[in-house]
Amino acid sequence: MAVTPDLARRLAAEALGTAMLVATVVGSGIMADRLTNDVALALLGNTIPTGAILVVLITILGPISGAHFNPAVTMVFALRREIEANAALFYIVAQIAGGIAGSLIAHAMFELPIIELSATVRTGTGQWIAEAVAAFGLVFTILAGLRFRPDAIPWLVGLYITAAYWFTASTSFANPAVAIARALSNTFAGIRPADLPGFIIAEVLGALLAMALASWMLSEQNPAPQALSKLKGAE
Amino acid sequence: MAVTPDLARRLAAEALGTAMLVATVVGSGIMADRLTNDVALALLGNTIPTGAILVVLITILGPISGAHFNPAVTMVFALRREIEANAALFYIVAQIAGGIAGSLIAHAMFELPIIELSATVRTGTGQWIAEAVAAFGLVFTILAGLRFRPDAIPWLVGLYITAAYWFTASTSFANPAVAIARALSNTFAGIRPADLPGFIIAEVLGALLAMALASWMLSEQNPAPQALSKLKGAE
Amino acid sequence: MAVTPDLARRLAAEALGTAMLVATVVGSGIMADRLTNDVALALLGNTIPTGAILVVLITILGPISGAHFNPAVTMVFALRREIEANAALFYIVAQIAGGIAGSLIAHAMFELPIIELSATVRTGTGQWIAEAVAAFGLVFTILAGLRFRPDAIPWLVGLYITAAYWFTASTSFANPAVAIARALSNTFAGIRPADLPGFIIAEVLGALLAMALASWMLSEQNPAPQALSKLKGAE
Amino acid sequence: MAVTPDLARRLAAEALGTAMLVATVVGSGIMADRLTNDVALALLGNTIPTGAILVVLITILGPISGAHFNPAVTMVFALRREIEANAALFYIVAQIAGGIAGSLIAHAMFELPIIELSATVRTGTGQWIAEAVAAFGLVFTILAGLRFRPDAIPWLVGLYITAAYWFTASTSFANPAVAIARALSNTFAGIRPADLPGFIIAEVLGALLAMALASWMLSEQNPAPQALSKLKGAE
Repeated sequence: MAVTPDLARRLAAEALGTAMLVATVVGSGIMADRLTNDVALALLGNTIPTGAILVVLITILGPISGAHFNPAVTMVFALRREIEANAALFYIVAQIAGGIAGSLIAHAMFELPIIELSATVRTGTGQWIAEAVAAFGLVFTILAGLRFRPDAIPWLVGLYITAAYWFTASTSFANPAVAIARALSNTFAGIRPADLPGFIIAEVLGALLAMALASWMLSEQNPAPQALSKLKGAE
Repeated sequence: MAVTPDLARRLAAEALGTAMLVATVVGSGIMADRLTNDVALALLGNTIPTGAILVVLITILGPISGAHFNPAVTMVFALRREIEANAALFYIVAQIAGGIAGSLIAHAMFELPIIELSATVRTGTGQWIAEAVAAFGLVFTILAGLRFRPDAIPWLVGLYITAAYWFTASTSFANPAVAIARALSNTFAGIRPADLPGFIIAEVLGALLAMALASWMLSEQNPAPQALSKLKGAE
Repeated sequence: MAVTPDLARRLAAEALGTAMLVATVVGSGIMADRLTNDVALALLGNTIPTGAILVVLITILGPISGAHFNPAVTMVFALRREIEANAALFYIVAQIAGGIAGSLIAHAMFELPIIELSATVRTGTGQWIAEAVAAFGLVFTILAGLRFRPDAIPWLVGLYITAAYWFTASTSFANPAVAIARALSNTFAGIRPADLPGFIIAEVLGALLAMALASWMLSEQNPAPQALSKLKGAE
Repeated sequence: MAVTPDLARRLAAEALGTAMLVATVVGSGIMADRLTNDVALALLGNTIPTGAILVVLITILGPISGAHFNPAVTMVFALRREIEANAALFYIVAQIAGGIAGSLIAHAMFELPIIELSATVRTGTGQWIAEAVAAFGLVFTILAGLRFRPDAIPWLVGLYITAAYWFTASTSFANPAVAIARALSNTFAGIRPADLPGFIIAEVLGALLAMALASWMLSEQNPAPQALSKLKGAE
């Protein structure tokens, strides 16, 4: 499959968006961690920028690429045949590459080693349930938003992640590309590389569950009485 | 009364929404409480996620069920004959069941006992006045929003609760289903089961007061001078 | 002047809105002050609810009364002949009465003496400049918002006050009715009654300055070149 | 070039807007710094007002002048020939003068010396990269916003700066006029005058980079396949 000029721009948008997202997650984590010893305050200093930048990035890059920035989201759209399988693979590569670039940019700004593997342990049943819940909520929010209020998606995603940073025990990574990039940052937002598989599997499962629920709960065509009555010629 | 496929989806939306709401209230309370000793900061870490998730949930589930998530709200709509009595009862059952599920999910994520009765005392005249004020404001906001700006309801409710967490002495439960679910969580957001009746009665009274005020203040037809003058044939 | 049923509803909206606004300002101040020793955190716990409730109140009551909730704003509209002088006087009475009621409600919820004169000193040149700046910005925001984006006024006012709580040295009272109500509350948000005149005079001066600047900067008719050219019959 | 009445109003809007912006940045910094010893909390007390006032100022002054408030932004519009070179120079003078006035107003409110050179060191590769990233993101957000959602620009800029205060190591000045004004304030938001050139050069480079990327990524006319196929008479 050739990368057309149009696809190139879409991939650039996915890479740029994921880079800015990760730079915000990692950078604000470093900033917050340096400025306070209160971890709740540090999480707030991590949450508000992340929610804010998501609204911005989805608004300005959505019209170009759809603003997935997330392999779990791209996977769901591929399964729903709303993006071609080949393009989806390119998207995922662009997201991972962009995410890693975002981590490097954050480190450069804060004069840290460009890459350092994280030592932050994030594992166990509670964390996995949390990631599944986080990804379930994110994907359901996106699918329901697309169904009822597509123009509101940037706000819905920004606000959902703002909440999920606090209500999930894992602070809601909910994104395999971002998780990989965070594994390369030994800072507030980091995750030990060994803990990545558990997170990614949980995120994929949560996303698939949301897709299944949405296909029932948001379906536009369920056999409504009047439709059936036409077939049967009776009320 | 049979549960039609359409009502089933509405009930699923009420249960899912109340579950996500309670998971956010309880989960963010646990997270905040674990991360800081400053109670104001913990309340902020409880407030921001709750306000944010309300905007999301009402936007994405409102088109399915109306997004009540609250027996006091459903009661008001039933009294206004905007929902059938039977459906209202099913709604309330779905809200209570969903709320309890949300509490369980939060506990599972944070690896706490799945259910533990709360020991947090919340009683006394001040608390009851606070709950009546909280529910009054919530119901009046919803009814006035429906009258003037239905599209803004998700934001209005999210922002109202954001404010009410702080200006009411009770941190604004304002919701019997959420109160019940919080009684099953011995965490930051909990309430002693023995204190539930006082809260629920105050919430119902506040909701009824808002309904009464709204029926006068938001009425579309009051005998306006020009209308009367037409009848009388005079200016 | 008789109070018609329509004016009665408008006055009720002004009183209710100012009561809810003051209950939020005073109530969230008490809550924040009780929960933390960090005054910046207390101010944040005062700011976020105040900004949020303003968006709600202006959205839901604006269609009834215009949602002034502020004698300085009503004065400006009266001077611009956008409200009758008599109605304006009733508005101001309703705002002051509503504001005082809001203070009482907050005290009842938090089980404090219903009225206690504030002992908080707020005086001096810096404070007066701050109140003039605060009211200038508020009134200019309202007038420019009405000119260009009337639908955005609730957000503009909520966000303006959110900022002004922090950038003015006085935490931006910017409202004589709210100032009077706060003088009756010996809590975080209070102001010594003796300091009221300085605040109110500064607020009125700031409001008048904004009105003057707006009449030039927002004027719809200035002799545009093309208009002149039509008179002169030339390009 | 004569300053027409229309240009005078535009310049007044640029000066007023930049003054209010700087008064907010400097004033909220002073307020936060006085109230707490926790620097993360002080930065939060600086961030929320700045983001909020940007939404307000761009909404109410954008229809008059375009609401640049920033020489780097004006430079980009001049290079894109969306503002005349002469008007652009006047804009920049108005922004710098307004910014300085904003600093003075903040000092007057907080009863500080009207001007005091800042002693806060902000220099080094990390800081310069941060300013380039900050200005890149700001200008790209504005250009993409103008292309896809012009009505959303006030929110996009307010939210972008909210995020950038935390994810950039420099707390995102991203604005030469604001940087100059902050050099005249020896407070939380200050910057040593000697460090201004490095910041301004980085900001200009970041803005130019964003302009270059936008000219490719946001171009409206690229030879789309279907357009070419029409020329070639083939699918």
